[in-house]
Amino acid sequence: MRREELAKMIDHTLLKPQATEEDVKRLVDEAKQMGFYAVCVNPWYVGLASKLLRGSGIKVAGVVGFPLGSTFAEVKEKEAGYIAEMGADEADMVMNIGALRSGRYNDVVKEIRSVVKFNFEHVKVIIEVSLLSEEEVKAACDAIIDGGADFVKTSTGFLQRATTAEDIALLKRIAGDKLKIKAAGGIRSYDQALEMIKAGASRIGTSTGPEILKGAPD
Amino acid sequence: MRREELAKMIDHTLLKPQATEEDVKRLVDEAKQMGFYAVCVNPWYVGLASKLLRGSGIKVAGVVGFPLGSTFAEVKEKEAGYIAEMGADEADMVMNIGALRSGRYNDVVKEIRSVVKFNFEHVKVIIEVSLLSEEEVKAACDAIIDGGADFVKTSTGFLQRATTAEDIALLKRIAGDKLKIKAAGGIRSYDQALEMIKAGASRIGTSTGPEILKGAPD
Repeated sequence: MRREELAKMIDHTLLKPQATEEDVKRLVDEAKQMGFYAVCVNPWYVGLASKLLRGSGIKVAGVVGFPLGSTFAEVKEKEAGYIAEMGADEADMVMNIGALRSGRYNDVVKEIRSVVKFNFEHVKVIIEVSLLSEEEVKAACDAIIDGGADFVKTSTGFLQRATTAEDIALLKRIAGDKLKIKAAGGIRSYDQALEMIKAGASRIGTSTGPEILKGAPD
Repeated sequence: MRREELAKMIDHTLLKPQATEEDVKRLVDEAKQMGFYAVCVNPWYVGLASKLLRGSGIKVAGVVGFPLGSTFAEVKEKEAGYIAEMGADEADMVMNIGALRSGRYNDVVKEIRSVVKFNFEHVKVIIEVSLLSEEEVKAACDAIIDGGADFVKTSTGFLQRATTAEDIALLKRIAGDKLKIKAAGGIRSYDQALEMIKAGASRIGTSTGPEILKGAPD
């Protein structure tokens, strides 16, 4: 896959809590230089990233309930409303997987709707595949579809192991064409990125996008 | 330090996102059995923990903006208001250290006030000591004091290295008697806990409280 084509599938990501405004400026500069699809930042930096990217065609994704997701739908709604107002084109929200695993399916659908209502271009729901059984992944995908979001995202990158091509294949088998898939968490090389795409991912989240692109053919 | 005395300094903690209601029940049972000071849970489980602990004398601490802290004061306020309503006695909030490091001191004071206003018995502000310079730790402690909170907490336990006695000594040197100190992050043995207390901690946050107590004399 050519460098330019791959760049257009990458969310260039900076979610470290200690990141400064300078760090976000650097992220944005890299995104412009490399032609990434989007930058993905914490809520606090959505406004800054959005201002710096105006007119560039590069999207801003903001996270919601990140990275644990174990809070109230009303809090996620408040956070989603703020990032929408600040210029986020996309929301990467974390599912309350503790609620899901406790049989609170309706609460999970509700929290997804409380983010979807802001009409982002895409809402990606992070389910932390490696912490769930196959049955739970199935329920999670059902909830995402019922909630009206269009993407399932594998992982926050803050917990557990790196995402694998098997994770993507599982999601593809379960969700078919009903959900797009974003692969994230521990993806650091061109080969890894390509594996994810071959397995069915249409977006890659990574903090090492520039290094990944170096491995790609011109 | 005797077992009973140490137990009264421990926040028995469960913050894994995949935790179920059953897991929270088990946490509460252990807290009652061991006589811990408090349980510390994600916002979603504050109501359940509070209900199960009614009349026991054991406190409920809920986290706010956890574990990254890189969001808006208004979102932290919303979350703090919810956990207060659900019965939290204490709030463990994460400071926006990215804002602090970008020179946004007033924003940090503002977010602390937006949690303090709910009149919790204690507000602990988590600053992730190991990610900050000594100068930044000083500014963080100033902001906590200006914001009206009474505790500085070393770490979320989700990032970087385990808390050390040196971290506690640094906080003690900087904050003196103006702030109490909660040591958290990677504390797993009686000896470690004792070191923290000797260095100046008055509360210990840990997910392995029962094991720690086993190491203490009756």
